[in-house]
Amino acid sequence: MSTLDAVLSRIDQDIDASVERLFALLRIASISTAPAYKEQCRAAAEHVAADLKSIGFEAGLRPTAGHPVVVGKANGAAGPRVLFYGHYDVQPVDPLDLWKTPPFEPRIDTLPGGRKIIVARGACDDKGQAMTFIEACRAYKSVTGKLPLPITTMIEGEEECGSQHLFKFVRDNADEFKLDLALVCDTAMWDADTPAITTSLRGLVYEDVKITCADRDLHSGLFGGAARNPLHVLARILADLHDENSRVTIPGFYDGVKELPPDIKADLKGLGLTAETFLGPIGLKEPAGEKGRLLIEMTTTRPTAEINGIVGGYTGEGAKTVIPGEATAKVSFRLVGEQDPEKVRDAFRTFVRERLPADCKVAFANFALAPPLQLSFDSPALAKARSVLAEEWGHKAVAVGAGGSIPIVADFKHVLGMDSLLVGFALDDDRVHSPNEKFDLKCFHKGIRSWARILDALSSS
Amino acid sequence: MSTLDAVLSRIDQDIDASVERLFALLRIASISTAPAYKEQCRAAAEHVAADLKSIGFEAGLRPTAGHPVVVGKANGAAGPRVLFYGHYDVQPVDPLDLWKTPPFEPRIDTLPGGRKIIVARGACDDKGQAMTFIEACRAYKSVTGKLPLPITTMIEGEEECGSQHLFKFVRDNADEFKLDLALVCDTAMWDADTPAITTSLRGLVYEDVKITCADRDLHSGLFGGAARNPLHVLARILADLHDENSRVTIPGFYDGVKELPPDIKADLKGLGLTAETFLGPIGLKEPAGEKGRLLIEMTTTRPTAEINGIVGGYTGEGAKTVIPGEATAKVSFRLVGEQDPEKVRDAFRTFVRERLPADCKVAFANFALAPPLQLSFDSPALAKARSVLAEEWGHKAVAVGAGGSIPIVADFKHVLGMDSLLVGFALDDDRVHSPNEKFDLKCFHKGIRSWARILDALSSS
Repeated sequence: MSTLDAVLSRIDQDIDASVERLFALLRIASISTAPAYKEQCRAAAEHVAADLKSIGFEAGLRPTAGHPVVVGKANGAAGPRVLFYGHYDVQPVDPLDLWKTPPFEPRIDTLPGGRKIIVARGACDDKGQAMTFIEACRAYKSVTGKLPLPITTMIEGEEECGSQHLFKFVRDNADEFKLDLALVCDTAMWDADTPAITTSLRGLVYEDVKITCADRDLHSGLFGGAARNPLHVLARILADLHDENSRVTIPGFYDGVKELPPDIKADLKGLGLTAETFLGPIGLKEPAGEKGRLLIEMTTTRPTAEINGIVGGYTGEGAKTVIPGEATAKVSFRLVGEQDPEKVRDAFRTFVRERLPADCKVAFANFALAPPLQLSFDSPALAKARSVLAEEWGHKAVAVGAGGSIPIVADFKHVLGMDSLLVGFALDDDRVHSPNEKFDLKCFHKGIRSWARILDALSSS
Repeated sequence: MSTLDAVLSRIDQDIDASVERLFALLRIASISTAPAYKEQCRAAAEHVAADLKSIGFEAGLRPTAGHPVVVGKANGAAGPRVLFYGHYDVQPVDPLDLWKTPPFEPRIDTLPGGRKIIVARGACDDKGQAMTFIEACRAYKSVTGKLPLPITTMIEGEEECGSQHLFKFVRDNADEFKLDLALVCDTAMWDADTPAITTSLRGLVYEDVKITCADRDLHSGLFGGAARNPLHVLARILADLHDENSRVTIPGFYDGVKELPPDIKADLKGLGLTAETFLGPIGLKEPAGEKGRLLIEMTTTRPTAEINGIVGGYTGEGAKTVIPGEATAKVSFRLVGEQDPEKVRDAFRTFVRERLPADCKVAFANFALAPPLQLSFDSPALAKARSVLAEEWGHKAVAVGAGGSIPIVADFKHVLGMDSLLVGFALDDDRVHSPNEKFDLKCFHKGIRSWARILDALSSS
C-alpha cells in the first residue's frame, strides 16, 4: 500500500471524528464584523492554534490591529514550502429568524434525495473548507509521523470584513511568508461532481455612504415639499449607477477590464451555465447583468456595482410621516482584470458628490479595497492539482474564474511574489452568507482526500 | 368683571396646575403605531375620560377595531352644539438616542433667550394642544358652574397612524355627532406672535412597498452581476417618482389640483416666508420642491410624494457582501384640492408595477387614505374666531393652508355635513414627530385663554 493510499484509508476511517472536530470549531460564534463578538473571534483563533499544535505545528496567535492571525509552522518531508491560507471568521447571521436551527449549533441533516449536509454558519465558508486541509495534514501525520511538505498556515480572522489588517501583517512579515506556493481553500466546485481550480478572483471595493440633509427628522406634513429628503437623493444616485443595459455608468469604471480571449470565452460557453440551473434554485429566472454577456461572465469575469444595504427614515411597523435627516447605503464593486480599487473608490465618490444637491452632505467609509487577481495558467502546480483532483472525483477539474474575492491572495502575488493554488469544495446551494448555510458531508470528506492527494503530488517532484 | 374676564383670570391663576395635569398625560407612552404600546394607549384614553368626568362631562371609552375613542358630552349654556376633536396618541420616539431626556418624562426647560418650553413626546402633538381646550372648559366650569356651550368631545387614539378606525366610527354614529360646528386643536400658529386659523388641509396616502427578488439573501461574490437586486429595483422606481423639476411623474397625479386664485396667492406671497427663516433652523438652505413655486405653496397647497423610509440588505456595522432577497420602502403622498386618495394609491401601484422587472414581486400595504380638505372662507364662526384671537395675541389672525393632514376633518365635512374651525398653537420649531418635541409654555397658556375667548364668542349670537 502506498503512503497516499494509507493516508486516504486513514481519512475514511477517521471521518466521524473529523466532523466532530469541525463541529467544535463551528460552535464558536466568530463573527468578525460585529464588535460584540470580539472574544468569540479570539476563542476561535485559539481553538485553531491548539488544533494545529496537536498535529505537530508550532502554532500561536499573532496580533494585528484587528482580530489575530493563527500562524502555524511545521517541517515535513522535503519539497516545496507551502503557505496554507484560510479564515476562522464568519459572516453575521441576520436575518436570524430565517434559520431553522441556531446558526452556531451545527448539525447533520439529510436532504430529500439523500445528500447529507453539515448545517451551521461557517459550515462551508470557511471553517469547513479550512478544516479539509487541516484534516488532511492530521491523517498524514498519523500515518507517516510527519507532514508531507514544510507547511506554514495563515488562518486569519477578518476575511469577512475585507482582511483589513492582514495586508499590513503580510507586508510587515513578508520575509517570513515568502515561500514557494500558497494553497487556499475558500472557493467552489464547478458542480457537485466536477472539481474546479480557481484561476481568477474578482477584487472588491466596499463603501458606506451616508447622506445628510436636515439636522433632524422632520414632519412630512410641515416640511414635505420644501425640505430635501436624503432618501430621494440616495435613490436617485443609486439608480444612476447603471444604464439601461445594466452597464455601470461611473466614468472610468471599465478601465483595465479586458475582453476574454475567444478560446477562453468558448470554453466558458461550453460549460453551458443556464439561467434555469443557476438562478432557478434561488427563485429567479433572468440574468440581471450586462446585456449581451454570458451568465458565467456576469458572475466571474465582469465587474459589478451592487447595493448591499440601504437604511433611512421609519422602518418599523405601520406608518410614520417623517422626512429623515439622513440615509445610508452600502455599495460594493466586484473588480476584474487590471481595475484599480483606489481609482474605482475615488471615481465612485466623485460620482456621488457630483449628484449631491446643495444642502446635502455626504460621508464615506471604506471597508474593502482588494485588487482583482488573474493567476498563471501554466504553473506545474496547477497541472498536478488538476490531475489528482480528476482521480479523486472522476471528472476533469476545470479552471474557472471566481466571482468573489479573497482579498489577500492578490497580495500573495504582488507582495510575496508567490502564485496561489485555489482549490475549494463549496457548492452553489451552500447558502454561503445566508441563513441555513451548509456544506455537503461528501464535499468535506472528499475535500480532505483531495488535499491529501494534492500534498502528495506536490511532494513528488 | 365680565364672565370672560373671570374665566381668563381663573386660567392665569391655575396655570401651574394645568401644566401638572398635562404632565400626567404626557407620562403615558401612548404610541399608537406600535402594537407593543396598546395598553398605554388605553391608559391614556382612560386618563382623558376621567379628566373630562372631573369637569362635568359624561365621558367614556368607545371601542373601535383599533384604539378606543374618548367621547364626552356635557350640556352647557344655550348656543351652537360643538364637537371638539383631538387625539391622545403620539408618534414613535425613535431615534431614541437623540433625546436629551426620556421622551415620556416631561420637563420644563428654558431656551437661550428665556422662552420656557414643555419637552416630551406629545407635548405639542397633540396632548398639549388638546389640553388647551380641556383646560379652557375647566376654567369655565370652575367660574360659572357650567360649560359655555353644549360640548361633545371626540379624542381619538389613532391619528398618528391615519385614523384608520375612526372613519367607520364616525359613519356608524353619524347621527350622534352631526352637530353644528367642529373645533379642532392640532394645527400651528403662523409664528410665535401671529395666531392662525387653518382653512385647508392636505390629504394623505401612505403606502408600504415590499419588493422581492430571490427567495433568500445571496453572496454578492457568487451571484453578483447575475441576480436581480431588489435595492436597485427600488432605487430606480423611487428615483423615477420626480422629474428634473421635482414634479411628481405618476400619470394622473395632478388631477384635481387647482391653481390658487391670484389674490390668495398674492396674500401668501405677502407673508414673506423665506428659505432662510423656514429651512435655515433645520440646517437647510434651498427649497427642494417644484420649480417655480412659492415655498409656502410647496408646504401647504401643492401635493407631494415623499419616501418616509427604506430598509433592505445589510445595515449593521462594517461590511456584508450580500444581495438581499427583499427590500421595503414607505412612500406617502400629501394631497390637495380635489385629488382622490384612492386614485392616487392605485396610480402609484400601477407606476410601481409597470417598472417591475420580470422575476420581481411586489406587495403593497396601505396605512392612510385621507382626502384633502378646503374649508369655507365665509363662515361666521371663522370671523368670530379671527377677531378674538387678534384680541388675545395682539396680531391679526391669518387664514392659511396646512401641510399636514388631520384625516378625520374631511369626514366631518363630507359625512357629518359640518364645518370645522381649526385653531392651533404649535410653532415651527416644536420638533413635532422628532426627538425632543416641545411646546412653548406661552403657547399652552395663551392657547387655553384663546379657547376661552372663542367659546365665549361662539356662545354670544
